[in-house]
Amino acid sequence: MTDTDTTRAVAGTDWRRRAAELDAADPLAWARGEFLLDAAPGVVSYLDGNSLGRPLRATAQRMASFVHDEWGGRLIQGWTDDGSGRGGWMHWPEVLGDQLARAALGAGPGQAVVGDSTTVLFYKLARAVVDAAGPGRDEIVTDTGNFPTDRYVLEGVAAERGLRVRWVETDPAAGVEVEQVRAAVGERTALVTFSHVAYRSGHLADAAAITAAAHDAGALVLWDLSHSVGSVPLELDAWGVDAAVGCTYKYLNGGPGAPAFGYLAARHHGRLHQPVQGWMGHAEPFTMGPGYSPAAGARSLVSGTPPVLAMVPVRAGLDLLERAGIGAVRAKSELLTAFALDLVDDLLAGHDVEVASPREPGRRGGHVTLRRADFRAVNERLWADGVVPDFRAPDGLRLGLAPLSTSFTELLEGVVRLRRAVARSGEQR
Amino acid sequence: MTDTDTTRAVAGTDWRRRAAELDAADPLAWARGEFLLDAAPGVVSYLDGNSLGRPLRATAQRMASFVHDEWGGRLIQGWTDDGSGRGGWMHWPEVLGDQLARAALGAGPGQAVVGDSTTVLFYKLARAVVDAAGPGRDEIVTDTGNFPTDRYVLEGVAAERGLRVRWVETDPAAGVEVEQVRAAVGERTALVTFSHVAYRSGHLADAAAITAAAHDAGALVLWDLSHSVGSVPLELDAWGVDAAVGCTYKYLNGGPGAPAFGYLAARHHGRLHQPVQGWMGHAEPFTMGPGYSPAAGARSLVSGTPPVLAMVPVRAGLDLLERAGIGAVRAKSELLTAFALDLVDDLLAGHDVEVASPREPGRRGGHVTLRRADFRAVNERLWADGVVPDFRAPDGLRLGLAPLSTSFTELLEGVVRLRRAVARSGEQR
Repeated sequence: MTDTDTTRAVAGTDWRRRAAELDAADPLAWARGEFLLDAAPGVVSYLDGNSLGRPLRATAQRMASFVHDEWGGRLIQGWTDDGSGRGGWMHWPEVLGDQLARAALGAGPGQAVVGDSTTVLFYKLARAVVDAAGPGRDEIVTDTGNFPTDRYVLEGVAAERGLRVRWVETDPAAGVEVEQVRAAVGERTALVTFSHVAYRSGHLADAAAITAAAHDAGALVLWDLSHSVGSVPLELDAWGVDAAVGCTYKYLNGGPGAPAFGYLAARHHGRLHQPVQGWMGHAEPFTMGPGYSPAAGARSLVSGTPPVLAMVPVRAGLDLLERAGIGAVRAKSELLTAFALDLVDDLLAGHDVEVASPREPGRRGGHVTLRRADFRAVNERLWADGVVPDFRAPDGLRLGLAPLSTSFTELLEGVVRLRRAVARSGEQR
Repeated sequence: MTDTDTTRAVAGTDWRRRAAELDAADPLAWARGEFLLDAAPGVVSYLDGNSLGRPLRATAQRMASFVHDEWGGRLIQGWTDDGSGRGGWMHWPEVLGDQLARAALGAGPGQAVVGDSTTVLFYKLARAVVDAAGPGRDEIVTDTGNFPTDRYVLEGVAAERGLRVRWVETDPAAGVEVEQVRAAVGERTALVTFSHVAYRSGHLADAAAITAAAHDAGALVLWDLSHSVGSVPLELDAWGVDAAVGCTYKYLNGGPGAPAFGYLAARHHGRLHQPVQGWMGHAEPFTMGPGYSPAAGARSLVSGTPPVLAMVPVRAGLDLLERAGIGAVRAKSELLTAFALDLVDDLLAGHDVEVASPREPGRRGGHVTLRRADFRAVNERLWADGVVPDFRAPDGLRLGLAPLSTSFTELLEGVVRLRRAVARSGEQR
C-alpha cells in the first residue's frame, strides 16, 4: 500500500491533494527555499523546528564571509568598525536587539539585547525584579508546568534571596489561565513569570491579561518567550510587559546554542539592576576605571564580551523573519497546526492518540503535542524513518511546525509515517 | 630611507637579518601557515593576538561543514549524536573542557567546562566560593589593577552578599606579588582572586605561591587566566588552585565573543554551588521534573544550552595548541617578548618610550606594554599603516605576541613602523 493509498483509505479525504493545495496557496512557500534543506536528505519530515530551527543558506554564506572577511580581515578593528558605518561588533547586542524588537517583539528600540543563554538572562532579570521589589514582597509566582530551567532558576533565586515560590498548578495538556494568576498574586508578590507558549502543550497564555492581573497586585512580570518568539506575534510594549527573555535557536533559526535575548521595558531602566556587573554593561567600558556604573538602557543587561560570531546566524534569521513578516508567519502557523489536528483526527483515529494541545487556534502556539503510552519507542522508530518530531517524557510527541521552513506536504508525510509507526507498534503489542 | 636602512642606521645591528634567523630557527614556524593570514592583506604586523586571535584555516572549513553537515544534516539529533561516537553536542562543555585542561590548564579531566562569557563564569565561581565561606569570612581580596570586569563583578557580589572588597594596590607597570597577598589575607578572607597575567603590564603572577598564601589563611582562590591561557603553561592541579576562568578568543583563537571556560577543582565538587541553576547543569536535564539537582562534577557550572556553534572554532584552536604543545608555545613566547624588548631598547632609544612590562622573562606573559604620552594618536597612525597593536588608556601601547601566528619578522616590521610613527609625532610637536 502506498502512502497515498494510506491517506485515502482512512477517511475518504485525499489529504495529499489537500496538502498540495495548501502549499500552492501558501504566501510563504518561497521561504522554504531559503533553507539548507538538501543538507539532510534523509529527513523527509522535520517536525522539530520548535526545538532547533534549520540553517538558512544565507547563514552558511554569511558565516563563511564573517570568518574570512570580518574576523580574519578586520581583526580587532571589527569591535569598533564592522563595516556597516554604524559602529562595530561592540554594539551588536543592541543592534540585534532592536531588529528583534521590530521584527518579533512588538517593542520600541532600546529595550532588548542579544547575548548570554536564556537561562542566564532569565536569572539576571528575575534577580533584577525581585531585588527591586518593595517591602513585604517575598513571593515569586510561576507554574508547575513551566519550562524546567525557569523553575530551577526561580528555586535558586528564592533560596538565595529568602523568598518563596508560589506554584500555580498547570496541566500538561494546558497552560496557565488568568484566573489562576489572579488567585495567586497579592501584596506579597514580587515577580510573576510564565512561559508565553507552554513547552509541553503549546498552550498560548493570555499575556496581556496576565500582565495586567500581576500589575493590579503591584507585581512585575517576566515572560519566557522561547516557544513563541518568531511564531506568535508579540506586543510587549502594548501589553505593558516589564521584562522578557527568549531563545533564538527555535523559530529564529540561530543554530545550536545560539545566544538568547532579554527585554527590559524602558520605564524600568536605571531602576532595575541585574546582578552580573560586567565591563560590557558599563557606561564606559574602555575607561576601565574603578567602580561599576551601568550603561543606559537595555545595554546594562550585558555582562561579558558579546558572542559576535554566534550572532551571525541570528541576524540571518531575523532578516528572513522581517522579509516574511510575523503576521504572515502566524497565519501560516495557525493553518499548519489546524492541518496537523485534522490529520491526527482522521489518520490516527482509533489509535489511542490523545491531543494534548488546545483545540482553539487562538489558544495555541506553533506546535501540537500528542500523547500515547508508547511514544518513546514510536519516536525512535520515526527518527529512523526520516521523520523528526521530539519526545517529551513521559508520553508526549511534539510536532513542531516552523512556518518558514515547514510545508504542508512535509507535515502530511510526517503524520502518515507516524500512523504507520503507531500501527506497527499496535501489531507488536 | 628604506626600512632596512632604518633598522641598520640606529644600532648597527641588522635586525632584519636577526628576525629572519629567529624565524628560520623557529620550531613553530609551520603553525603560522595554519592561519587565514591572507584575509587581512593590509595588515603587515598584527600585534593584538592577545586581544583577538586570528582565525585558522581549519576554523573556516569546520564552520562551513558544521553549518551544513552537522546543524543542517543532523538537526536536533546532533544534541545526542554528533557523529563522534562519544555522545552529542550536549556534552561539548565537558569534552572541550577536558581538551582544554589537557592542552593548556595542567588539570585532570572532569574539572573544566566551556560556555558562557568569562564575566558570567567569573560571577558564578566567585559566588560559589563566597557563598560557601565559613562564618566571619566576609572579605574578597583582589587588586586595583585587575581587569575591569573582574573588579566590577566583585563589587556587585560584595554588595549583594554583604561582603567587603579588600583592595591590593598594584602599579600599572607591575602586578600582584605574594608579599602583598600575605599582608592582605586573614581569617576574614573568603575569596582571593587575581589575573594570572596582568592585562596592562603583562606581569605574570606567581600563582602557586599566591594560592598557597591564600590557603594558609583559610581562603579559596579564583584565577582569571584570560591573558595567560594558551600562552603560559598552567598547572592548576599542582598549584592547588580552587577555581579559575578564562576566555578563548585570545591565544586560543576562538573568535570574537567566543565562549569562556571555568575550572572547579574536583575536591570542591558537590560542595561549592554556583547560583544560576539551569536545566543544563541538572543531573538529569531531560527528566524535566520538579526540583533542581546539580549534575556531578564541573557540569554543574553549566546553566543554559551550550553555545555549540560558537565552540567549533574553539575546538580548532585547541587542536592546533595540542599539536604545537604549550611548552613550545611558551618558549617562543619568551623569545618574542625578549626580541620585542631588544628592538624597543634599540630602535626606540631616545624617543621617551617607557617599557611598562617586567624585564625578567619569567615574570612576564605574552605581551609587552610600552608607554608614551601620545600613544593614543600613535596607535591610530599605526593602524592606518597596517600595524595593529592595541591602546590602553591613558598612554599604553600593548604589543600582543601570539606564538602560533606571530613571526619575528612581523614583530620587527611593527616596531620599525612604530619608530616611524613616533618619530613623525616628534616632528609634529
